[in-house]
Amino acid sequence: MRVTVRDVAHLVGGTVIGDDQKLLTGISSLTEANPGDISFLANPKYESYLKETKATAVLVATAQENVPLIQIVVPNPDFAFARVVASFGPKAVPPPPGIHATAVIGENVRIGANPAIGPYAVICENVVIGDNAVIYPHVYIGHESIIGNDCTCYPQVSVRERSQLGNRVILHSGVVIGSDGFGYASVEGVHHKIPQVGIVVIEDDVEIGANSCLDRARFGKTRIGKGTKIDNLVQIAHNVETGHHCIIVAQVGVAGSTKLGNYVTLAGQAGISGHLTIGDHAIITGKAGVSKSIPARLVVRGSPAQEIKSAQAQEVAVRRLPATQATVKDLLARVAELERRLSAITPLEKTTEKNT
Amino acid sequence: MRVTVRDVAHLVGGTVIGDDQKLLTGISSLTEANPGDISFLANPKYESYLKETKATAVLVATAQENVPLIQIVVPNPDFAFARVVASFGPKAVPPPPGIHATAVIGENVRIGANPAIGPYAVICENVVIGDNAVIYPHVYIGHESIIGNDCTCYPQVSVRERSQLGNRVILHSGVVIGSDGFGYASVEGVHHKIPQVGIVVIEDDVEIGANSCLDRARFGKTRIGKGTKIDNLVQIAHNVETGHHCIIVAQVGVAGSTKLGNYVTLAGQAGISGHLTIGDHAIITGKAGVSKSIPARLVVRGSPAQEIKSAQAQEVAVRRLPATQATVKDLLARVAELERRLSAITPLEKTTEKNT
Amino acid sequence: MRVTVRDVAHLVGGTVIGDDQKLLTGISSLTEANPGDISFLANPKYESYLKETKATAVLVATAQENVPLIQIVVPNPDFAFARVVASFGPKAVPPPPGIHATAVIGENVRIGANPAIGPYAVICENVVIGDNAVIYPHVYIGHESIIGNDCTCYPQVSVRERSQLGNRVILHSGVVIGSDGFGYASVEGVHHKIPQVGIVVIEDDVEIGANSCLDRARFGKTRIGKGTKIDNLVQIAHNVETGHHCIIVAQVGVAGSTKLGNYVTLAGQAGISGHLTIGDHAIITGKAGVSKSIPARLVVRGSPAQEIKSAQAQEVAVRRLPATQATVKDLLARVAELERRLSAITPLEKTTEKNT
Repeated sequence: MRVTVRDVAHLVGGTVIGDDQKLLTGISSLTEANPGDISFLANPKYESYLKETKATAVLVATAQENVPLIQIVVPNPDFAFARVVASFGPKAVPPPPGIHATAVIGENVRIGANPAIGPYAVICENVVIGDNAVIYPHVYIGHESIIGNDCTCYPQVSVRERSQLGNRVILHSGVVIGSDGFGYASVEGVHHKIPQVGIVVIEDDVEIGANSCLDRARFGKTRIGKGTKIDNLVQIAHNVETGHHCIIVAQVGVAGSTKLGNYVTLAGQAGISGHLTIGDHAIITGKAGVSKSIPARLVVRGSPAQEIKSAQAQEVAVRRLPATQATVKDLLARVAELERRLSAITPLEKTTEKNT
Repeated sequence: MRVTVRDVAHLVGGTVIGDDQKLLTGISSLTEANPGDISFLANPKYESYLKETKATAVLVATAQENVPLIQIVVPNPDFAFARVVASFGPKAVPPPPGIHATAVIGENVRIGANPAIGPYAVICENVVIGDNAVIYPHVYIGHESIIGNDCTCYPQVSVRERSQLGNRVILHSGVVIGSDGFGYASVEGVHHKIPQVGIVVIEDDVEIGANSCLDRARFGKTRIGKGTKIDNLVQIAHNVETGHHCIIVAQVGVAGSTKLGNYVTLAGQAGISGHLTIGDHAIITGKAGVSKSIPARLVVRGSPAQEIKSAQAQEVAVRRLPATQATVKDLLARVAELERRLSAITPLEKTTEKNT
Repeated sequence: MRVTVRDVAHLVGGTVIGDDQKLLTGISSLTEANPGDISFLANPKYESYLKETKATAVLVATAQENVPLIQIVVPNPDFAFARVVASFGPKAVPPPPGIHATAVIGENVRIGANPAIGPYAVICENVVIGDNAVIYPHVYIGHESIIGNDCTCYPQVSVRERSQLGNRVILHSGVVIGSDGFGYASVEGVHHKIPQVGIVVIEDDVEIGANSCLDRARFGKTRIGKGTKIDNLVQIAHNVETGHHCIIVAQVGVAGSTKLGNYVTLAGQAGISGHLTIGDHAIITGKAGVSKSIPARLVVRGSPAQEIKSAQAQEVAVRRLPATQATVKDLLARVAELERRLSAITPLEKTTEKNT
């Protein structure tokens, strides 16, 4: 990249403190920056880095005193920096424009304007793909699937038949959409496969991380709400539905038919049982195991998951438990001694009477 | 689909209550049904849905009174419905019959009758494949592997060399069979790879979910017993063996050389340490961490896993623990007060003597 | 295989006790061996197997008396056996030498001596690959990536753009290198993607298991240190760095920017939060949840993870907790009774005074 400080400030609507003609040639964090780089300060606790960084310019929320860098003041430096990187940073190189000669396109496939479809992609009959599709090599799109505009499928993505993707959906390498849900009817010791004839619907602006799996519904729809972001190696079972703008971190599993509200956060390695409802803005912390429905805005922790303050109080209590048990043992001895001493004073018969 | 109620009743051996000439055009759950749909009632707790559903006909275990639907009475509505869906529901469209011109077939490969092998499949030398094979695009089958009759490999499945699959095996997208087991000999701080020269054997009627991994044995065999069903993102390490008809839910991990009996259930995200034996019909509940062998029919929970009733009693106890600790603190004060009061009555010297 | 005992002894530098001209035709564990097989005894607790095995020869650390097998004495039988298997055991058959006619090689790609690149591999522009590369079918290597000498990529590996692999790196089927890190700037309820413009660096002698995912850095580098071994289905988030010779077992997740020292062990299904430091030789046991940095050589267990002895003491304490709570209930009754009896002796007014 070769842009001026002024170019960056113009892009993000920021105010420059310092030389706005200075040339910027790279992008980095404060700690890793070299001269020529632009960086950002999102968290005030890293303010001291401004004195040591080799960066040439920095995006800040409020002007800093006594720092030798050029500053660009913007309300949200984190977001502004993301825009700078998107505009001036290195980019993935999609397959060349057009449809590669080796791509296998089935009958009656409709593809919108400006496709970039790579070698060995396989797109089955009756698929509809919107404009500006980026389909990397070895992607499979099953028959009758519908892909919106501006979608990206990285290598080795598998979209099974009749799936429906909205606009601006990103599927990372190895993602599987529409695999059969896990359902069997067990009759006399044999598990008979229950056909999974539903579909998967992925709404606009969803991004799904590498090797994550979203099973098709038994019937009806497995649905991922618009703006929801899913990390790597996540399991979404059949008939799960998420609301809008959920965050689902790596290695989470959500069992069948569970419904998430809007803005739900599932942190890494959490597991949610089937047929539950997770309310809007609820937060399931990392590794939590949820086996009951969770009301809106509740934060839960542990397995089985509980409201976070209770869970933490119990964790503290358990850490003290060996000491508590020693105390109880001591109390037992002291009480026995008290009983002995008291019995030496008061007649035992009387006490016995009282207890019966 | 366009079938009559009588057609459905005939298929499942059911008794019709109502108009058996009525046309059925779709398949759905009771809550999502439209007119023309057939649905089912598997669980009596959803009986009330029968009054509200828009379905035209329903499979039931016992005839219901005062419901406006056509009923088909069968012993197991869940299983019967699965058969209806399999017969009349929408189906995955396999690759066209034959072997696609772009499939790469190695030397000395034998393929049975009626194959459907899609574009860009790669089948290496000396592979044997049975009748009615469905091999989707981008599947890799390594040299000398043996695949039985009526098997399905979805896109991007990788079956490494010398693997052996029985009949009616289903491998979902991204499944990896026969990757190297995780084994190293550490010598002077360097981890030297231990060659993994065994194989994977998958018996009849096994289904394996998307992106699951089954490692080849160090030597000998990693074996999945007949009728076992494995969900998505499951890890089966080298030399693991499962019995018949096990159920292994998503994101479970089984470490090396562990043996499962028949009808074992491993619920979601459970982890089993290596070199253990899990008895027939044992149930490992979700997220459990098993580090000791489990006898037949035991149900375990928690990490480290314990028999479920003990585990649940401890969970209840931990929830009450903060209150217990407050009680112990209170008892300490009361006992100290008792000791003080008693010492005011009886000579302290005497007590001290007793304690030494 | 057809080699003599002497051949094996020569390979591993061992001393033969018995007939060194005997022919060996197979490799196996002691319990599964047939006549003609060579096996090994690594753990003295299996010494009794030597009396029952059908193996013809065995690698041992010290000469055994009264066993009917040919013995080859070596300092480390486990490691020696690994070398025997590597030399004489069955091997994966790589793609044929050369570059398959269907491989798509981009402009300005440089490939070293003796490549074996299989059908339908896609190698994008400006990639550099060292000598003796083994690239199985359906592998994708993104533009400007650098692959060292003697590397193996199994089928359906995806190496995204600008990744850097050292020498002797092994990537198993379905591995994804360089997928976008999981990062969003949330502005007014919408999660805006933060471009992930860094890379992944994998040093020499790293092996990565099937379907594991290593995200590219936000900027800078996600780095896997030399000799580190990663099992299947592992998640390595953006900007994670590991030291040398770490062991990361299946289904582990490491969140963003966490740094591991050298010789760190992360056992199966462990989860490490972001922005932490794990010291050299630390051991994180299976299923542990680590939310604080861990000093060198500490062994931790549980979730939240604690030093293992404390964690185990608490586990024991929790198992006794229901009994403890029964004891506390009993103590409450006994103390109340003592208070009652004592108050019958000493004036209550006096006690009350003391307490105020």
